[in-house]
Amino acid sequence: MFTKNLVVAAPLVVGRASLAASRGRVRAVIVNSGNANCATGQPGIKACQRICRELGELLGVPTGEVFPSSTGIIGVPLPVDKIISRLPGLVVSRQATEQGIAGFAQAIMTTDTRPKLAAADFRSGKATVKVLGIAKGAGMIHPQLATMLVYLFTDISAAPAELRQLLRDACDDSFNCISIDGDTSTNDTVLLLASGRSGVRLKTAATRKNFSAALQQVCQSVAEQIVSDGEGVRHVIRLSVEQARNYEEARQVARTVAHSLLVKTAWAGAGPNWGRILAAVGRSGVAINPAGVSIVIGDQVVCRGGVANAFDEKRAHQALSRPSSEIRIRLRRGRSSTMFLTTDLTAEYVRINADYST
Amino acid sequence: MFTKNLVVAAPLVVGRASLAASRGRVRAVIVNSGNANCATGQPGIKACQRICRELGELLGVPTGEVFPSSTGIIGVPLPVDKIISRLPGLVVSRQATEQGIAGFAQAIMTTDTRPKLAAADFRSGKATVKVLGIAKGAGMIHPQLATMLVYLFTDISAAPAELRQLLRDACDDSFNCISIDGDTSTNDTVLLLASGRSGVRLKTAATRKNFSAALQQVCQSVAEQIVSDGEGVRHVIRLSVEQARNYEEARQVARTVAHSLLVKTAWAGAGPNWGRILAAVGRSGVAINPAGVSIVIGDQVVCRGGVANAFDEKRAHQALSRPSSEIRIRLRRGRSSTMFLTTDLTAEYVRINADYST
Repeated sequence: MFTKNLVVAAPLVVGRASLAASRGRVRAVIVNSGNANCATGQPGIKACQRICRELGELLGVPTGEVFPSSTGIIGVPLPVDKIISRLPGLVVSRQATEQGIAGFAQAIMTTDTRPKLAAADFRSGKATVKVLGIAKGAGMIHPQLATMLVYLFTDISAAPAELRQLLRDACDDSFNCISIDGDTSTNDTVLLLASGRSGVRLKTAATRKNFSAALQQVCQSVAEQIVSDGEGVRHVIRLSVEQARNYEEARQVARTVAHSLLVKTAWAGAGPNWGRILAAVGRSGVAINPAGVSIVIGDQVVCRGGVANAFDEKRAHQALSRPSSEIRIRLRRGRSSTMFLTTDLTAEYVRINADYST
Repeated sequence: MFTKNLVVAAPLVVGRASLAASRGRVRAVIVNSGNANCATGQPGIKACQRICRELGELLGVPTGEVFPSSTGIIGVPLPVDKIISRLPGLVVSRQATEQGIAGFAQAIMTTDTRPKLAAADFRSGKATVKVLGIAKGAGMIHPQLATMLVYLFTDISAAPAELRQLLRDACDDSFNCISIDGDTSTNDTVLLLASGRSGVRLKTAATRKNFSAALQQVCQSVAEQIVSDGEGVRHVIRLSVEQARNYEEARQVARTVAHSLLVKTAWAGAGPNWGRILAAVGRSGVAINPAGVSIVIGDQVVCRGGVANAFDEKRAHQALSRPSSEIRIRLRRGRSSTMFLTTDLTAEYVRINADYST
């Protein structure tokens, strides 16, 4: 899964072409942080291809089975020689151990304050199937350094086409439900690789269900880690939109509320300011009837049928003061719902992003 | 012209109905600040109707020709008795003088730091036609107090239907081109009233052209005053999108860039961070080709054909450090263009809006 931004970085162009040519076969992943290799034109593509070729030769695998990622500043040429000079050392020191995994998680960080890892497993007969997720991303803090990169590794045996749909579903319920500032990176990538080493195949409905659950669990955990590591973030909000006519309109309302500056700044002050939420719902583009809208903060209905509902303001303020809290918006239009994991917008966020450093 | 938000305040419901019934005839305007009379249900509608009725009786005009506006907090009952008790005094003290105008401009302010006024006139034969604009709005600083209210007065003689199209055109090139935080109020109103007192009628093409120009001039001046009074605003940006295939897609790109948190925070630091702008263009939903996009900051092309163009960073930083500066985005897709007046996003904005005061 790749960013939907039309401005895409060189590694995505190269990686996509390789995946198409190899029919989803990947033998190695190479990631650099500090430079996104984006808006770098044809030289950027060539630099990326050269890294894949050199690494492929060192590992004895086809160039097209080396998958590249970059994260960092936009519009600056990739220091390709610097990267290539480090490849032999990386090949020698690579190891399938906890230490190796931790080293990878650490190396791909940019403005992240901590590495992001999650794992899950399930039994299948006598075998155990594992799913491991390693990610970076701190919610568009330092914008050009805020790309979300997620690598999911499993030892199940499955064909690329079988995995693709499961990955899409897992992303819909995790990475596609998080929003910090609404900006989309030019380099966002989620890669799922299956080694087949467990000997368990994705053929029975039970295995499929177990694997899907493990994958979702890992994706959701990693997504939550990304949200709560957003720099300047003080409050994580689980925002549910319920009783929508369909999934798309539920998401449209959730997106509008989650991206409203007025709503996000109210959350920074733990303010139970439902008027701002109602106004955002009203301009979402969904044909809501204000008289049908109710808003719940924590365990209190603060707005019912579009008008104020008496509530304990102090308790609502306390609920929103916790590191993580819940807000529900009910539209009284149907039976669809969605959940968004989002955050407040603090003065700290602005300070970091306004810092003139380029 | 009214807000497009589906959550609308009581005065808009009442005012719209009155305009429909009177066919656009208005004899008096009554505005209160401090309370938006929004999300107040049926009692809010009744309160507004009562104010119009009382004022109509005092002035000897029909209730339906009294036009109401409110701006202030959402979801709190309107203190209707307090307002009604002040009506006789207001009726006695009203005056068609500079002092009267200044008093009105002052009275409708909420978080505005200064009153907003603009005037224009033109000769028609021996007569002079005047256009006066009075507005409030400080760019969604204190959200429920940030409604934009604009009252335009002219002494031309014209039918409501003739004025409507001219007002729509004037709004498109002024109020619909400003954006501070992307949130839309539940109370936004632009009202154009013509007394006919100049004796000049809107019948010849020349008069129409002169009047339209005067109206646009007043609207644009007032719109600029609103943008630059946005609390926390340090930099106003004139953002042009050029070479779009059509007007709608030009606006779509302008809107996405103008609302991007990453772009707005970069402007706060006067950072010539074109990568953030390019990434926002890429996710705008318009099918741009990144290789066709160029970005100009001040007088320098900083990105050409989607890649970095060597430029003097210090000069670009200086250009963006001015109170008002220009950025142009060229899409190389067609001949349409648009201009947006927008602002940076400062830590000060967040502080004000995060303030827990409700």
